[in-house]
Amino acid sequence: MINNKRLEHEMEEVSKFGALKPRGINRLAYSKEEKEARAYLKSLMLDLGMQIREDAVGNIFGRLEGREDLAPVASGSHLDSVPYGGCFDGTLGVFTALEAIRVIKEKGFSHKRPLELIIFSCEESSRFNMATMGSKVMTGKLDLDKIKSLKDKNGISIYEAAKDFGCDVDNLDSAKLKKDDIYAYVELHIEQGPVLENKQIPVGIVTGIAAPIRYELIIKGRADHSGATPMNMRKDALVTAAKIIVGIEDIASQKIWKTLVATVGFANAVPGVLNVIPGEVKLGIDIRDIDKNNLEKADELIIELIENLVKKDDLKYELKQLSKDYPIKLDEELVDLIEQEAIDLGVEYIKLPSGAGHDAMHMPEISTLTGMIFVPCKEGISHNIAEEVNMNDVFQATEVLSKTLLTLANK
Amino acid sequence: MINNKRLEHEMEEVSKFGALKPRGINRLAYSKEEKEARAYLKSLMLDLGMQIREDAVGNIFGRLEGREDLAPVASGSHLDSVPYGGCFDGTLGVFTALEAIRVIKEKGFSHKRPLELIIFSCEESSRFNMATMGSKVMTGKLDLDKIKSLKDKNGISIYEAAKDFGCDVDNLDSAKLKKDDIYAYVELHIEQGPVLENKQIPVGIVTGIAAPIRYELIIKGRADHSGATPMNMRKDALVTAAKIIVGIEDIASQKIWKTLVATVGFANAVPGVLNVIPGEVKLGIDIRDIDKNNLEKADELIIELIENLVKKDDLKYELKQLSKDYPIKLDEELVDLIEQEAIDLGVEYIKLPSGAGHDAMHMPEISTLTGMIFVPCKEGISHNIAEEVNMNDVFQATEVLSKTLLTLANK
Repeated sequence: MINNKRLEHEMEEVSKFGALKPRGINRLAYSKEEKEARAYLKSLMLDLGMQIREDAVGNIFGRLEGREDLAPVASGSHLDSVPYGGCFDGTLGVFTALEAIRVIKEKGFSHKRPLELIIFSCEESSRFNMATMGSKVMTGKLDLDKIKSLKDKNGISIYEAAKDFGCDVDNLDSAKLKKDDIYAYVELHIEQGPVLENKQIPVGIVTGIAAPIRYELIIKGRADHSGATPMNMRKDALVTAAKIIVGIEDIASQKIWKTLVATVGFANAVPGVLNVIPGEVKLGIDIRDIDKNNLEKADELIIELIENLVKKDDLKYELKQLSKDYPIKLDEELVDLIEQEAIDLGVEYIKLPSGAGHDAMHMPEISTLTGMIFVPCKEGISHNIAEEVNMNDVFQATEVLSKTLLTLANK
Repeated sequence: MINNKRLEHEMEEVSKFGALKPRGINRLAYSKEEKEARAYLKSLMLDLGMQIREDAVGNIFGRLEGREDLAPVASGSHLDSVPYGGCFDGTLGVFTALEAIRVIKEKGFSHKRPLELIIFSCEESSRFNMATMGSKVMTGKLDLDKIKSLKDKNGISIYEAAKDFGCDVDNLDSAKLKKDDIYAYVELHIEQGPVLENKQIPVGIVTGIAAPIRYELIIKGRADHSGATPMNMRKDALVTAAKIIVGIEDIASQKIWKTLVATVGFANAVPGVLNVIPGEVKLGIDIRDIDKNNLEKADELIIELIENLVKKDDLKYELKQLSKDYPIKLDEELVDLIEQEAIDLGVEYIKLPSGAGHDAMHMPEISTLTGMIFVPCKEGISHNIAEEVNMNDVFQATEVLSKTLLTLANK
């Protein structure tokens, strides 16, 4: 039903804005490249007869009115990328949503509710160290002070960048939406994990979005000469750090969890040279689950592990919680509806959690129903120029998305 | 017998060249600060009536002739420091040697052999990534090409720095000495380890100098999204690295060794951020012993450990040997002689190996007898502004050094 060639062509066209050679994109939030991509998209939205509105931080809403004046059914994602990112994270969700809505209009299917395409501003945390800025503003989580205080590495604040981008950012409050202002929001995204590809399934119906608890752990030993200090006189912070890394892996790998993951992303030793025993090591710890109880249980076990191992080795530590977000369970009613559409279309699917965060996390606060559809990405790789999808998976997932939006728009 | 006040005063004076506040020094090889320290030292050597000679890389030889034209008895160390280093590493060996020789002359003790004070150039590896440059040149281990190829972080080669320092570096070959050109070389140095301080012993007689085998190990896993990749689908390079760190610690801590140590100095994860599973980790490994057989045995065990753990986790690795030096056993005859002097003076001592490298490592190639005397340093800390000694230990060790030099000079 959808136009595969057109979708494929538009994905190729949009990949030119910020294109890297041989592949990938650099399309940071509020950059010239993002502006170009938005202009291209807006021209397609106008061709489709959408009414376009931009809010105070540049979130774009493209609307096709329905038969009745009801809360709209929306789909979309973001056009900004991480530095040296791939062509699909975010952008695929925007262009599949456009195609899904466009085909409804082209085929003349009647819809009671308006259909909206939403493009969120500044979803990636790369530029301003904060993710999902656009949906946070939409759900009233950020004020002007915060927007002015978060700066990129050149000292430019979100406020300045948005203003420079042409946004009426001083009217920040006007961007805030209320509960049920949107009837349903369904976002298509690449999985950013290996599960769908491993199982060779084109569609993942997302049951929940995991939230991370994050720590910075500093282990304090004593820097000594690595040649002159007998093994039994050492306070080697890296050895204790290594025991903690192995311990966290063991805890997270236990069979008692279903969806828990825990990762140590770095282990920075100071001074970090061959002839000195590491006196201090900084670990970055990320614990996630869509199950809030298990997340908290694992968090406790990991804190206990750190305490015990550091004490046993007679070292000291500082544990700083960087963030603690709660996981979001997506609406079962919508999961069931997407499932039924997939069955009707004969598209293979599984249900799975999202380990990565998305704008959809915030949408339950303003949207009656919120859901997500995943497509496999090659080797689970994302945030990388090597990000890749199989377009046949994308076509099938877009059919499911389009049918889902149409069904929702007649509820 | 030695002049404690004078030695203490001169150590204070020399610590002003490159002084940091509140303490420590920055006195890199061939720097303005080292030049000032050398000028101060040379003025004291001239006061003592020494003949001063500098070789092609700036190694200084200060000589007091003996009754006969024989190979000299020498002592000394280096004046360069690591960045943000302490006041005692190297410098203490220079000024205690000066005091030890000076007191022999002042007291009018007759000596058959000449007495020499040697100051080695560029002992620290900090500036040019190569340690003990001066003694390597003296023992013919470096040619002009090598001297020209080793550069500091500003791209200045040893060759250029030495030339700029006033050295006749084109005549490099003239700096080379032959076997037995020196009869005995005895170097006093801070221990750079905690053994003497822990035992509260002022003098360590060094039995051998450990040599490191060093590796750079790159563990190759796969960088995946840390939220979206289930535990059983990961190839986390940092987890495998952590097992290796713990395994190396276990091997080195076995009771079968006496003097073996092994250290992982850093574990640099790539990309090293919280939302990506480390795809690659680089470990720096340093294995040392004064026992060559045990060093090689431990080396084999560690290589086997790496192979097994990486294989078990289904990852890949690259192991690059950075250096493999052989440990030096110091002359037993000289160890016995130093021991006898300590006994005669009533100074407490123990025998111990040196885990750190020193210019003395190379001296057996040109010196008939080579020995070292250690003094305790506070908490074993060195290469650090917090480097500290107890001057009462230094005074006792200098007495032993002076008596040892006098005895050797009459052999």
